[in-house]
Amino acid sequence: MRRVGRTFCTQARFRVVFMRHGESTWNLQNRFTGWTDVKLTPKGIQEAKDAGQKLAQNGFKFDLIYTSVLSRAIQTYNYAAEEMDCHYLPVVKDWRLNERHYGALQGLNKKETAEKHGEEQVKIWRRSFDIPPPALEPSDARCPHQDIKYRGVDPAKLPLTESLKLTIDRVLPLWEQELTQSIKAGKNLLVVAHGNSLRAIVKHLDGISDADIVELNIPTAIPLVYEFDEQLRPLKHYYLEDPEVLKEKMDSVKNQGKK
Amino acid sequence: MRRVGRTFCTQARFRVVFMRHGESTWNLQNRFTGWTDVKLTPKGIQEAKDAGQKLAQNGFKFDLIYTSVLSRAIQTYNYAAEEMDCHYLPVVKDWRLNERHYGALQGLNKKETAEKHGEEQVKIWRRSFDIPPPALEPSDARCPHQDIKYRGVDPAKLPLTESLKLTIDRVLPLWEQELTQSIKAGKNLLVVAHGNSLRAIVKHLDGISDADIVELNIPTAIPLVYEFDEQLRPLKHYYLEDPEVLKEKMDSVKNQGKK
Repeated sequence: MRRVGRTFCTQARFRVVFMRHGESTWNLQNRFTGWTDVKLTPKGIQEAKDAGQKLAQNGFKFDLIYTSVLSRAIQTYNYAAEEMDCHYLPVVKDWRLNERHYGALQGLNKKETAEKHGEEQVKIWRRSFDIPPPALEPSDARCPHQDIKYRGVDPAKLPLTESLKLTIDRVLPLWEQELTQSIKAGKNLLVVAHGNSLRAIVKHLDGISDADIVELNIPTAIPLVYEFDEQLRPLKHYYLEDPEVLKEKMDSVKNQGKK
Repeated sequence: MRRVGRTFCTQARFRVVFMRHGESTWNLQNRFTGWTDVKLTPKGIQEAKDAGQKLAQNGFKFDLIYTSVLSRAIQTYNYAAEEMDCHYLPVVKDWRLNERHYGALQGLNKKETAEKHGEEQVKIWRRSFDIPPPALEPSDARCPHQDIKYRGVDPAKLPLTESLKLTIDRVLPLWEQELTQSIKAGKNLLVVAHGNSLRAIVKHLDGISDADIVELNIPTAIPLVYEFDEQLRPLKHYYLEDPEVLKEKMDSVKNQGKK
């Protein structure tokens, strides 16, 4: 904080850019994806490149990249990097930035699930704060502890399903123990992750209520810039995108659960 | 080693795959590239994908990736990963795997340089073991110490030009101090680098003479598989490629310096 006359003028000291991955094949097929390791569609690749271009044109420079261990997030960074000429940057890939685990719903079509279980039930699974979808059986081949990606992780920490609350419970330790340390060390971070892992961070940063966070939609592959003061308190945030385009993108996420 | 009857049958204990990056824009323009951070051409991208497919089809699995800090090597891995579904793997990007620094020749066309200085002189610069090309002036914008990629590196270690000998001098410590440790720890490595940084390792592994190593051509984006015994002594090596295609690729590298 810098004293100006008798008032305190709070200045941005740190800046972090968050970004949700571009459109994936299962976004397109309208299926519950969760930890299923699907890839970007050609549109998703283009979204990632567009985001990289926007960041480059606006003079953003990074020192360190964080992604989940899911391909669609890493691809989004890789294609953005093609436009930013920053392939050389270190990339930390951490499972705690993964999407919410959707349990036994993973792989099911959202509309079909709505038709079978009712739109209300699907809305509860998708948008309640603390009710997780039905869990995977531990013998299910879709379980993370059977996946080579997670062999370095304590199996007891790996979920069989997650509510948004449970997602937050594993994202925030990463934020508080690692990312904030990197930021305070002066590193400019780009965090490429998923709708729900980013909700977890945003909820924490802006003190959003449990009720409100489930209604907050983060659009795909639009850089979300947060500015912080010395104490890492958020001062403001904004999307690097035209407001019209932004609204359209947010509405399209919101309408996915409808019949 | 496993005893079979009265003879010792040496068995492969470790395996490492090396790979030169795919065709870059300056390969195509026949310019001395060195540390200039050019990108892959569309053909180079396709080569990288083909290599990834070959590795996947032949059941290769990796635990850890090493690349240089140059985009064309990192891109080669990224596009290969698209076919291998291994985006989640950690990637160590180390400047010591960079291409040989070509000094003041960086940016010049190989044929034009041959016309100006004579084919023999160019052959000396390209293929002598210990004669480096003319050095960059420290004030030259092309110098590595002026490049953000190398800001974490002791400037005294960064070259203004390099012979193959000098390249070897900075590649081998990385091989001996880091890569061999990772291999002995049981990690399957993929090393994506450059013609001369790979020559450095191959010379060391196979005890190739100073005279012979300069004649050894490593083709672009063909997986080169080395198998080792318990003591990390090379038992055999082979390219994952049809011998006809391989020969064609090697000849095309060899002919680049001709007028």
